[in-house]
Amino acid sequence: MTSHLVTGIGELTTHDDRFGGPLLGAALVAQDGLVVWVGSAQDAPAADRRSDLAGAAVVPGFVDSHTHLVFAGDRSAEFEARMAGTTYTGGGIATTVAATRAASDAELRASLARLVAESRSQGTTTLEIKSGYGLDVETEERLLRLAREVTAETTFLGAHVVPAGADRGEYLALVTGPMLAACAPHARWADVFCDPASPYAFDAGESRAVLLAAQAAGLELRVHGNQLAPGPGVKLAVELGAASVDHCTYLADSDVAALAGSDTVATLLPGVEFSTRSPSPNARRLLDAGAEVALATDCNPGTCFSTSMPLMIALAVREMGMTVAEAVRAATLGGAHALRREDVGHLRVGARADLAVLDAPTYRHLAYRPGVPIARGLSL
Amino acid sequence: MTSHLVTGIGELTTHDDRFGGPLLGAALVAQDGLVVWVGSAQDAPAADRRSDLAGAAVVPGFVDSHTHLVFAGDRSAEFEARMAGTTYTGGGIATTVAATRAASDAELRASLARLVAESRSQGTTTLEIKSGYGLDVETEERLLRLAREVTAETTFLGAHVVPAGADRGEYLALVTGPMLAACAPHARWADVFCDPASPYAFDAGESRAVLLAAQAAGLELRVHGNQLAPGPGVKLAVELGAASVDHCTYLADSDVAALAGSDTVATLLPGVEFSTRSPSPNARRLLDAGAEVALATDCNPGTCFSTSMPLMIALAVREMGMTVAEAVRAATLGGAHALRREDVGHLRVGARADLAVLDAPTYRHLAYRPGVPIARGLSL
Repeated sequence: MTSHLVTGIGELTTHDDRFGGPLLGAALVAQDGLVVWVGSAQDAPAADRRSDLAGAAVVPGFVDSHTHLVFAGDRSAEFEARMAGTTYTGGGIATTVAATRAASDAELRASLARLVAESRSQGTTTLEIKSGYGLDVETEERLLRLAREVTAETTFLGAHVVPAGADRGEYLALVTGPMLAACAPHARWADVFCDPASPYAFDAGESRAVLLAAQAAGLELRVHGNQLAPGPGVKLAVELGAASVDHCTYLADSDVAALAGSDTVATLLPGVEFSTRSPSPNARRLLDAGAEVALATDCNPGTCFSTSMPLMIALAVREMGMTVAEAVRAATLGGAHALRREDVGHLRVGARADLAVLDAPTYRHLAYRPGVPIARGLSL
Repeated sequence: MTSHLVTGIGELTTHDDRFGGPLLGAALVAQDGLVVWVGSAQDAPAADRRSDLAGAAVVPGFVDSHTHLVFAGDRSAEFEARMAGTTYTGGGIATTVAATRAASDAELRASLARLVAESRSQGTTTLEIKSGYGLDVETEERLLRLAREVTAETTFLGAHVVPAGADRGEYLALVTGPMLAACAPHARWADVFCDPASPYAFDAGESRAVLLAAQAAGLELRVHGNQLAPGPGVKLAVELGAASVDHCTYLADSDVAALAGSDTVATLLPGVEFSTRSPSPNARRLLDAGAEVALATDCNPGTCFSTSMPLMIALAVREMGMTVAEAVRAATLGGAHALRREDVGHLRVGARADLAVLDAPTYRHLAYRPGVPIARGLSL
C-alpha cells in the first residue's frame, strides 16, 4: 500500500485528453502499481516514497503487441544472404522450427528471459508473445506455457506456416483440432498468417477456419495480413472482429475503409520492412482515414530480430509518414488497443504505473536519436 | 605491466589477414593497453588477470571518425518539422551556434561527457570531435580545448558555415588568420564544409584557401564534400592529400576514380541520410572501384543526433550495398585509416586493446539486430 511520488519529470506524456498534450514539470503518484495522481510537480501530494527523475521525459511504457520471442537457433547468416540480394519467401521459418523443437525448456526459458529483459531495458512494459515455431501439438503447447510465464498476452499461432512436407488439409485439421485443444488453456489470443502470396501461409478460407475454431474455443482473434501482397487478411480480420490485423504492408482503398469503420487496429511493423528491405506501408493514409494504428517490433529470428520500440518509432517517422507524437501514441495506446487493454498504454489515473523513462528532455528524441538506447522501462 | 587474458570470445574479428576471417573460440592478451597475443583459446598463455566473455563476439572498438559532439541546445523540434516535410538547407546551425556561445565551459563539458559515455557504451573507443559551433575566435578555441580533454582527434571546423549576417570575405580572412592561429594548438585536423549547393557552405576556391592555410599551420586535412549535390569537395580532398572526404552522397564517376587512386578515405555517414530523409550514397560502387570506405555517425544536433555505430552498420547494409563484414570493417579499420591511425580499428598484435564486446554470437548481429544496444566498449 506504499505510495510512490515520482517528481522531476521534465515532460510527461499521459494520453489524457484533459491535458491537451504533454505536461511540463510534472509529477506522478503510484500506489499498488497503479497511477493514482498526475499533475504539475508543484501541486504534488505527499507520498511514502519519492524519486526524482532530474528532468527526464516520460511516456507510457511501450506496448509491444506483436512478438515471436520464444525460439531457438540463429538465422543471422540467412539475414546476411538476404541483404546481399536473396528474396525472402518465408521458407526460413523451418530452420527455427527445427532448432526450437530440439531445445529444452531450460534453454528456451533462458533465451526468452534474456529477450524480455532486453525489451524492458528499452522501455517496453507490456509484451505479446506468439507460439508458431513448434508446429506440432507438444511444442506449440510448450511454447505457450513458457510465454505465459512472462506475459498474459499469449497468442496461439499454430497457423504460422504449413510445416515443410506436411499435407495442408491434415495440418489444418491438427491446428483446428488437437493442437488448439492443447494450446487454448495457455493462450488469450489466436492468430493466423493469412497471405495467399506465400506458399507457406494460409488463404482466406483456411484462415477463416482457423479463426472460427479458435473463437469457438474461447480465444480472441488477431491476424497476420497483407504483408507480402494485397490479400484477404484485413477484411477477414474486420469481419470476425479481430482486435488487430498486423503488417498491412499492401492495402487496397477498401481495406483502409474497412479498418476505419471498425474496432480492428492496424498494427504496423516497420522493423520487418527495414530488415527485409521491403516497401513501407503508408501510415498517413490509415490515420487520415480514421483507422487506429499501432506500432510493434514483430521481434523474430527471421524478418526482424529487434526488440527496440524506439527504433520502430524512428522508422515509422522516417518511412511511414507519422509525426513523432503519432508514432509514440501508436507504440503505447495503439498497442494497448491492439491487445484490447484499457489499463496500459497511457498514464491516466487508474492505469498501470508502467513508464518509459527517457534519457532526454522530450519524447521527440525517440525519433531524433535513432539507435541510441535512451528509453528504459520502469514499473512502479 | 599487468597482463590481462580475455578468453571465452565466441568469435573474434581482428582484421589480421593471417587468420583469413574471424577466429572462433578465441582469446586475447593485453599488456599496458596493447594487444600482445591473439589466438585460439586453447593455446592462450598464462596472464596476471583473466576475464571470460562466455561466448560473446568481439570486434575492434568502433572508430567514429566524424562527430560534432561539443554543442549546446536542443533541435528536436526542427527535426520534427523536417520529418513532416520541411527541406533541410543547413540554416539550423545558427540555433546551435547561439546556444553554444551562450553555454559555459561546465555546461559544454557535462554535455560532452554524457555523449562520450553514451558513445562508448555502444562500442566506440576512438572518437574524432570537430569544432564548428562557435564561429568566432574565442568559442572555436574553447570548443577545441574542451574536445581535446576527451580525444586526441580534434578538428578545427571554423569553416563549418558562414555565420548569419557575416561578410563571406571577412569571415574567410578570420578563419584563415586569427581563428586558425588560436585554434591550431588544440587541433590535429582542419576541415571545411565544401558544398557550393549550400549558401552557408564554401565553394572550391574558398575551401582550398581554408585547407592550405591550415596545412601551413601544421594541421592535417579532412573535408566535408559532396553532401547536398555533386561538387568539387572530393577532388579537392584528393588533390590536397586529405585523410578523408566525408558524406560523398553525390559522386561523379570521376570522383570515384579519384578516390580509388588515392589514400583519401571516403567516409559515409548513413545516419545523416536517415535523419534528413535523403538518398543514400552507393558504397558498393566505391568498394568495387577500390576506394577505401569508412562509416561514422556525424553525431550532431541538426542532421543526425545519433552516437550509435551499430545503427550506422545496419543502415550501411540496408541502404548502401555493403555486406555486414564490409560495414564492420568500415566502422573500425576504415575509421582508423580516415584518421591515419595504425594503432586502432584492428586487433592485431601491437594494436590498442580497444574492444567492442557484443551481446551476440557473431558480428553479423550488428546489422541483424537493428536498434538493439548489443555492443559495449572495453579498453583493457
